[in-house]
Amino acid sequence: MYNFRSDYLEGAHPSILNKLMETNTEQTVGYGEDYYCEEAADIIRELINNDNADVHFVVGGTQANMLVISSILRPHEAVIAVSSGHINVHETGAIESVGHKILTVKGKDGKLRPCDIEYVLSLHTDCHMVKPKMVFISNSTEIGTLYTLDEIQALSRCCDENNLYLYLDGARLGSALCSEINDVELRHLARYCDIFYIGGTKNGALFGEAIVINNDELKEDFRYLIKQKGAMLAKGRLLGIQFLELFKEDLYFELAAHANAMAMKMKEGLDKLGFEFFTDSYTNQLFVIIDNDLVKEIEKKYQVTFFETYDETSSVIRFVTSWNTPESVIDEFLLDMKDLVG
Amino acid sequence: MYNFRSDYLEGAHPSILNKLMETNTEQTVGYGEDYYCEEAADIIRELINNDNADVHFVVGGTQANMLVISSILRPHEAVIAVSSGHINVHETGAIESVGHKILTVKGKDGKLRPCDIEYVLSLHTDCHMVKPKMVFISNSTEIGTLYTLDEIQALSRCCDENNLYLYLDGARLGSALCSEINDVELRHLARYCDIFYIGGTKNGALFGEAIVINNDELKEDFRYLIKQKGAMLAKGRLLGIQFLELFKEDLYFELAAHANAMAMKMKEGLDKLGFEFFTDSYTNQLFVIIDNDLVKEIEKKYQVTFFETYDETSSVIRFVTSWNTPESVIDEFLLDMKDLVG
Amino acid sequence: MYNFRSDYLEGAHPSILNKLMETNTEQTVGYGEDYYCEEAADIIRELINNDNADVHFVVGGTQANMLVISSILRPHEAVIAVSSGHINVHETGAIESVGHKILTVKGKDGKLRPCDIEYVLSLHTDCHMVKPKMVFISNSTEIGTLYTLDEIQALSRCCDENNLYLYLDGARLGSALCSEINDVELRHLARYCDIFYIGGTKNGALFGEAIVINNDELKEDFRYLIKQKGAMLAKGRLLGIQFLELFKEDLYFELAAHANAMAMKMKEGLDKLGFEFFTDSYTNQLFVIIDNDLVKEIEKKYQVTFFETYDETSSVIRFVTSWNTPESVIDEFLLDMKDLVG
Amino acid sequence: MYNFRSDYLEGAHPSILNKLMETNTEQTVGYGEDYYCEEAADIIRELINNDNADVHFVVGGTQANMLVISSILRPHEAVIAVSSGHINVHETGAIESVGHKILTVKGKDGKLRPCDIEYVLSLHTDCHMVKPKMVFISNSTEIGTLYTLDEIQALSRCCDENNLYLYLDGARLGSALCSEINDVELRHLARYCDIFYIGGTKNGALFGEAIVINNDELKEDFRYLIKQKGAMLAKGRLLGIQFLELFKEDLYFELAAHANAMAMKMKEGLDKLGFEFFTDSYTNQLFVIIDNDLVKEIEKKYQVTFFETYDETSSVIRFVTSWNTPESVIDEFLLDMKDLVG
Repeated sequence: MYNFRSDYLEGAHPSILNKLMETNTEQTVGYGEDYYCEEAADIIRELINNDNADVHFVVGGTQANMLVISSILRPHEAVIAVSSGHINVHETGAIESVGHKILTVKGKDGKLRPCDIEYVLSLHTDCHMVKPKMVFISNSTEIGTLYTLDEIQALSRCCDENNLYLYLDGARLGSALCSEINDVELRHLARYCDIFYIGGTKNGALFGEAIVINNDELKEDFRYLIKQKGAMLAKGRLLGIQFLELFKEDLYFELAAHANAMAMKMKEGLDKLGFEFFTDSYTNQLFVIIDNDLVKEIEKKYQVTFFETYDETSSVIRFVTSWNTPESVIDEFLLDMKDLVG
Repeated sequence: MYNFRSDYLEGAHPSILNKLMETNTEQTVGYGEDYYCEEAADIIRELINNDNADVHFVVGGTQANMLVISSILRPHEAVIAVSSGHINVHETGAIESVGHKILTVKGKDGKLRPCDIEYVLSLHTDCHMVKPKMVFISNSTEIGTLYTLDEIQALSRCCDENNLYLYLDGARLGSALCSEINDVELRHLARYCDIFYIGGTKNGALFGEAIVINNDELKEDFRYLIKQKGAMLAKGRLLGIQFLELFKEDLYFELAAHANAMAMKMKEGLDKLGFEFFTDSYTNQLFVIIDNDLVKEIEKKYQVTFFETYDETSSVIRFVTSWNTPESVIDEFLLDMKDLVG
Repeated sequence: MYNFRSDYLEGAHPSILNKLMETNTEQTVGYGEDYYCEEAADIIRELINNDNADVHFVVGGTQANMLVISSILRPHEAVIAVSSGHINVHETGAIESVGHKILTVKGKDGKLRPCDIEYVLSLHTDCHMVKPKMVFISNSTEIGTLYTLDEIQALSRCCDENNLYLYLDGARLGSALCSEINDVELRHLARYCDIFYIGGTKNGALFGEAIVINNDELKEDFRYLIKQKGAMLAKGRLLGIQFLELFKEDLYFELAAHANAMAMKMKEGLDKLGFEFFTDSYTNQLFVIIDNDLVKEIEKKYQVTFFETYDETSSVIRFVTSWNTPESVIDEFLLDMKDLVG
Repeated sequence: MYNFRSDYLEGAHPSILNKLMETNTEQTVGYGEDYYCEEAADIIRELINNDNADVHFVVGGTQANMLVISSILRPHEAVIAVSSGHINVHETGAIESVGHKILTVKGKDGKLRPCDIEYVLSLHTDCHMVKPKMVFISNSTEIGTLYTLDEIQALSRCCDENNLYLYLDGARLGSALCSEINDVELRHLARYCDIFYIGGTKNGALFGEAIVINNDELKEDFRYLIKQKGAMLAKGRLLGIQFLELFKEDLYFELAAHANAMAMKMKEGLDKLGFEFFTDSYTNQLFVIIDNDLVKEIEKKYQVTFFETYDETSSVIRFVTSWNTPESVIDEFLLDMKDLVG
């Protein structure tokens, strides 16, 4: 039974495991101060075209969000996000647990717009309310959409004008950057975001997210926060080695491109079969409107995620492809679907 | 240059990496709900002789301490520990960052005694002070000593009498359990501790600590806390697989026994050469009093840790052996020392 | 220039000041353990018909909310409130600052309904999301409406069925209890709420809120939380004396009834002049729809609060009457309004 | 039975109550933005000779400490204090509850010295430990001693050299400033402390502490913190009016001088009777070594505080005099003591 529920269901790309094997008995200093981490950071600095960036590796995305936000904000400062944002819904209150309110707006297509930010700002006008200080976006978003360069630039401008920090959660940044409609590059993020992270867990690493700090003001003592929030891995090199494998050549982008290609093939096939889509995704997550009876049939052979009720008889179903989804699985799935709707 | 600075300087025991390799392309459900985690938990329950225990796997020790304590204590409740306790000194205020005061006492030989607990209790008598509610101990301790079964029982009794929870940090539990003078077994911990963890990171895993909750009152919603504190690994099976390898047979104990044997060989050798020891350790950490000039000589060939100043001309130096320290390195080290002191 | 902006703009009812004067040189034990506090607590227990309740006095409402919630909830637990709830908008993130997420729903007429609670519950289903554990309501609400006994009972039932605590913020409880359409009594709150507070600050005290804990489970160590959150007044008797004055006879209810009567007189007068109301209030807050040009005229003589934009040419303006609003001011105000709209 | 247990056992100086009475029916804007608060702040700025200081009024000392520290420190930063410091012992973990570790040293005579600070700094050297960032002192101290100008200057210099903020808790600042051996003036605090507070509660106010921020870096958004921590009084003018009464002429200093004079008279009398003192206090707190049997006799007529055990047969007993202690009480007390020891 093939599982389309997420992109973290397998281990890691074999070259990562091989490198872990190969380096296994080396002794290195702990806590991320080894040469693998340093080299991986250098390569990332080069890729994003910002020699001056600080790069830190942590194990997971909730960790990254919690520690970035708690490092940057004072107690009365809040973060603006779309209602569907991961920090708002799916992190068990991690951001509030470190003391900060998330100010949510609906946004459009899962994305935040300058007008959304301005609306939130217009409501927060005195010291009886929290003070918005950071904007949180994800690329790709929770519903598989992605930001254009124009949109990122507009958000950055809006943040500058309003004295807000722009933070981009890149748990699925690979998929965004490798989407066929994408026009954003890593160097743009280094220029327009104060801070962002490059997700490894959902793109072929065993685990790992690379936090990139571009704004000098936000760099001080970041490692103290990493340690305090339990995000400092003793054998820190495990993170350096993985990011090195992903970025020393183009592996990171190849894996993301593969996941996207599998999703696009699925999308095209479902489109031909007459399915409609809840969001127009060009990344590795598809949100398909499916009749509830048909969902039951599909679930006999595939694991999928119920996203939300569409109407009385149908649901929005999420399919996620990964760096490791075989093309043959997509072919078979589309044949199965053809049979089912035939 | 061999590095004696810690026991987390290498990767993992090869059988762990092999198993990760072997299971790499399997798809499993995420977040620790896979069958590897379930099986590892079952094996641990059997080992500790407590079918009823809850077992959770997290990545690191600071994480484990932070989430255990924040899960259990109300905001005004505090934890009692020795001054040298890891939570007090080396976690960048992680416990305070989740709101709790650590009440410290000196203890004896790095260990907490019932009289220490009673002294702290005698000082905390009304609502203007925090309320002691948990006792934190490490086994083996930060200075390589270990608790006897009598001592653990006495602490447990003292906690029961005073309505305190007993929590044992087992970052180096393997070394304690396999020490030649040890009389504590895992099943004792399940009986006398409300909660404890079994450390993997410092005993041959890539990373990972297994939290065992024995007290039913402390079990509710623990997974919520794991998630909130950023300690829930997406590819949770990585933890299950590792603990399965460590415990399905005796690997965990063999690795710890090896680390201890190397330390004991080093201890015996240094003793013969006339060195004195700061603590009488029977685990994988030695604290040796060494003349400062000699330290400089040693550091030309070995990496060691300065622990504290002993007197004007000498220091306490920490040596740590690991699951992977070759016996030949110890032999060579002792020959080198003989030359140096000759 | 008369100020209708709030009900905390003057000092206290003279009998309170007189009593403070009279008792000024007495020496009493501090921190709320004096006999004035004890007597005030006794009287409140009698009034609410619950001998078993714990009663604690604190200085202000944000304090009360912050400490009640932090005392009761574990870190992953959240509180359900209407979007307009005071804790959500006007406490500068106090609740998040002690670690808890507020889950908001729109509600109806500023009030929360069982269906709102059930909707929130339906969205929070696993450990990746916070766990709703408390329901927060205000009576009267932020927009001057009030709960009926039926509604309170229904909420209580819904909370019982779903293992939620019901907490009522009574910053303006006096006005609610003395409204002409009210059918809720204090003894009902003792029966249906796990915890609630009786507001003094907005009903004739210098300051002070009386927190009443009915649910035995929530009583333990509450004074520790009061102290920790900075809410324990050194000269605690100042709170006891004030609540004693308010409740030893019917002063509290007389003051609230007066404030309501002034608002109802204003409402009737404005109604006759053809004004429309944004909410149908029977308490001491009126929300009136007024043409923007007219607002400017009113502001030449009265201080009022802009609440929100109604349409392109008019606004919702909030008028608040107090225990001390002279009837002559209402008369004059209505004459002025008649002139302005004449 | 006269009570020597503290200086907050009575109400307020009558002129404060009279002023509250006199201004009672005025309507003023809430939350500390009224003209009484403004005028009180102006007078304080003049007194401390710093036009540029920000002055904020809050209700109590724990509040002041909690909000000052949480406003200033980032999550990994810690505060250095003597072990006996109020924040360490008597605030129910308020500082830890907002996330910060208190690093304690014994100090000397209840006071912190530059060498103590340097010792703490020497122990905190990397990101695995908290980062000391603030120094907390009280004047007068918890044991009635006081800092000289030289000592304050030396601490200030030490803080400057080590990039630490100096914060002075002035809960009993009046008593310190009016001590016969004092050489510190308010203008020195404005020059040498980054932030300090002037205590009202223990010197004749109903309640109230005036926080003075001298360092521009620490001023931003402080009112947000006041609100968030529940320290913003709705009827804020109550604080302004009180501090105005205390400082518009010399009332604050007269009251403190009286309390000190009563303590000094008691000290002289006890000295003549042969008593020994645990600390050499020149403020309104005396710590007297008394035989345990004698303590029992004293307690028949006076309420006093057991401070600590001195030896097997005697205790350290704390006596506190206040702005309102009648001289006749001291006379009578000394006669009683003469009888008892006669």
